[in-house]
Amino acid sequence: MTKPIIFLQRPFREEFIDKIQAIAPAYQIKTALTPDEFSAVEISVGWSKEFHEQLLAANQLKWVQALSAGIDSLPLAEFSAKNILLSNGSGIHALSISEHIIGVLLGYYRGLYQAVKNQEQKNWGHDAIQYDQLAGKNLLVVGTGHIGQQLSKSIRSLGVNVYGINTTGHPAEGFVETYSIKNLAKIVPGMDIVIGILPGTDETYHIFNSDIFEKMKKDALFINVGRGDTVHTKELLTAPKEKYFAFAALDVFEEEPLPKESPLWTLDNLLITPHISGMTVDFQNKFMQIFLANLKNYVATNELAVNQVELQRGY
Amino acid sequence: MTKPIIFLQRPFREEFIDKIQAIAPAYQIKTALTPDEFSAVEISVGWSKEFHEQLLAANQLKWVQALSAGIDSLPLAEFSAKNILLSNGSGIHALSISEHIIGVLLGYYRGLYQAVKNQEQKNWGHDAIQYDQLAGKNLLVVGTGHIGQQLSKSIRSLGVNVYGINTTGHPAEGFVETYSIKNLAKIVPGMDIVIGILPGTDETYHIFNSDIFEKMKKDALFINVGRGDTVHTKELLTAPKEKYFAFAALDVFEEEPLPKESPLWTLDNLLITPHISGMTVDFQNKFMQIFLANLKNYVATNELAVNQVELQRGY
Repeated sequence: MTKPIIFLQRPFREEFIDKIQAIAPAYQIKTALTPDEFSAVEISVGWSKEFHEQLLAANQLKWVQALSAGIDSLPLAEFSAKNILLSNGSGIHALSISEHIIGVLLGYYRGLYQAVKNQEQKNWGHDAIQYDQLAGKNLLVVGTGHIGQQLSKSIRSLGVNVYGINTTGHPAEGFVETYSIKNLAKIVPGMDIVIGILPGTDETYHIFNSDIFEKMKKDALFINVGRGDTVHTKELLTAPKEKYFAFAALDVFEEEPLPKESPLWTLDNLLITPHISGMTVDFQNKFMQIFLANLKNYVATNELAVNQVELQRGY
Repeated sequence: MTKPIIFLQRPFREEFIDKIQAIAPAYQIKTALTPDEFSAVEISVGWSKEFHEQLLAANQLKWVQALSAGIDSLPLAEFSAKNILLSNGSGIHALSISEHIIGVLLGYYRGLYQAVKNQEQKNWGHDAIQYDQLAGKNLLVVGTGHIGQQLSKSIRSLGVNVYGINTTGHPAEGFVETYSIKNLAKIVPGMDIVIGILPGTDETYHIFNSDIFEKMKKDALFINVGRGDTVHTKELLTAPKEKYFAFAALDVFEEEPLPKESPLWTLDNLLITPHISGMTVDFQNKFMQIFLANLKNYVATNELAVNQVELQRGY
């Protein structure tokens, strides 16, 4: 009988291949497959449209370890129907995204974006620089998972008061107070900064819309690093123009790359970053902490240790 | 006999004028002077070239409370000869400068400056973004005063290892280790980030020169928010070109505003900000905490409570 296959859909360093093999000696480790081999894949590390059909058709797949935190583009219903386990990469990107958010906020408050533009014109421009202070601000994290908790931990120490929103308002570590998502519109008016870190689900689709934008403080900031479609882009487009809030920074979009013809590009109170907040140094090491912990458990008990996705819930 | 005058060289809110008068009822408070009145000025809040001659000639001046931390442009030798006390505004700007530095660092590490430029071209540019992680970096604060200590406190909590340099290497709160300024060139090679926060004195003039730049790590960052002439600008100009270090950010310059013809403007690994790092919200409140404490002491004992400048030393 053919040994079952662990299919790595991206390359990893030799040291990690060795560790995988040591934990799972009964498996073959492959980074490319012949057509015959798909039927032996039991564990897939990563998921791509390219091999989607073959892997599901073979009916041997038992566990998909996604590389990313977001898994809403994966076939969750089919995984559920076939009892395929799914775990995600949640946590790997938390520190990077937290640093990205703090950088975006301070870049705005300290006038750095204006300075970059002035420098291109050789323009000293001292008097045009707007500045403010991060310390003392009230910040709302919408989504109190790994990333939200890391952000809270880091930014609290800079003197920011951090509030949280999650599904039920259950307490989460490091938040002054947490509220249920259904209270979003009630909480927003008291906040200087609103950060979207939501997964893509039916419940979160277009949750940041004009009902929310118009309740924000006129000098407030809105940042989205969650799923692009949690923001109602068309309604955001009218919001800054009418000065519902002072500044927005988007790292994710309903369509990526953002098309050239998008009117977002030229809004003067919007910072566009190209889905980079999660880019992280030492990805392989951070990822393997999750995968190897899960693999050890899976080999022993056919169950996962961490980051298992509830397929019905979608995160 | 004319009441002695407290001369405010900038406006302050009514609430602060009232507090000054309550502490010092024997004094007149003036924000503008007739020619006759200069001879009655005992305390000057702020110092400008405009009134320099008149105030010194009148021989009644006993105390100058500067508005800024840097006082190297003031006539220290004349103050010393006439036994005029000098106190500065050190500490007022510490939080702002700390936020500025953290913002500049994260802006670089998270690729935000490149993103701002890309956005102007409607260019998604995902693959051109360079990124790195702030957490885990070794940072050297050259100047462990108020600002250095505030920076250390804030940035340590983001996972940065903070080392300090001061005149003698005396310990300072919140630094892993402190070294004497004469060891600067020996310490720089182990650092990912070097921050200049030095006052302008004979000893610090051009202290950041090619001897230091060439010892920096090739992927290191250099930031100056101290005095402009602590940097040897001509030698800095050749340094980035030859890739002694990866990136520099200057908020202060030997000549300000930076002249249009300066070659600094177009260096692609240099961020220029127009002496804004110290700009702070609620300046009056922060300043008055220093001035009123000093005034109380001065009225009672003719001595100052905080922030007195040693005129010989120059800070």
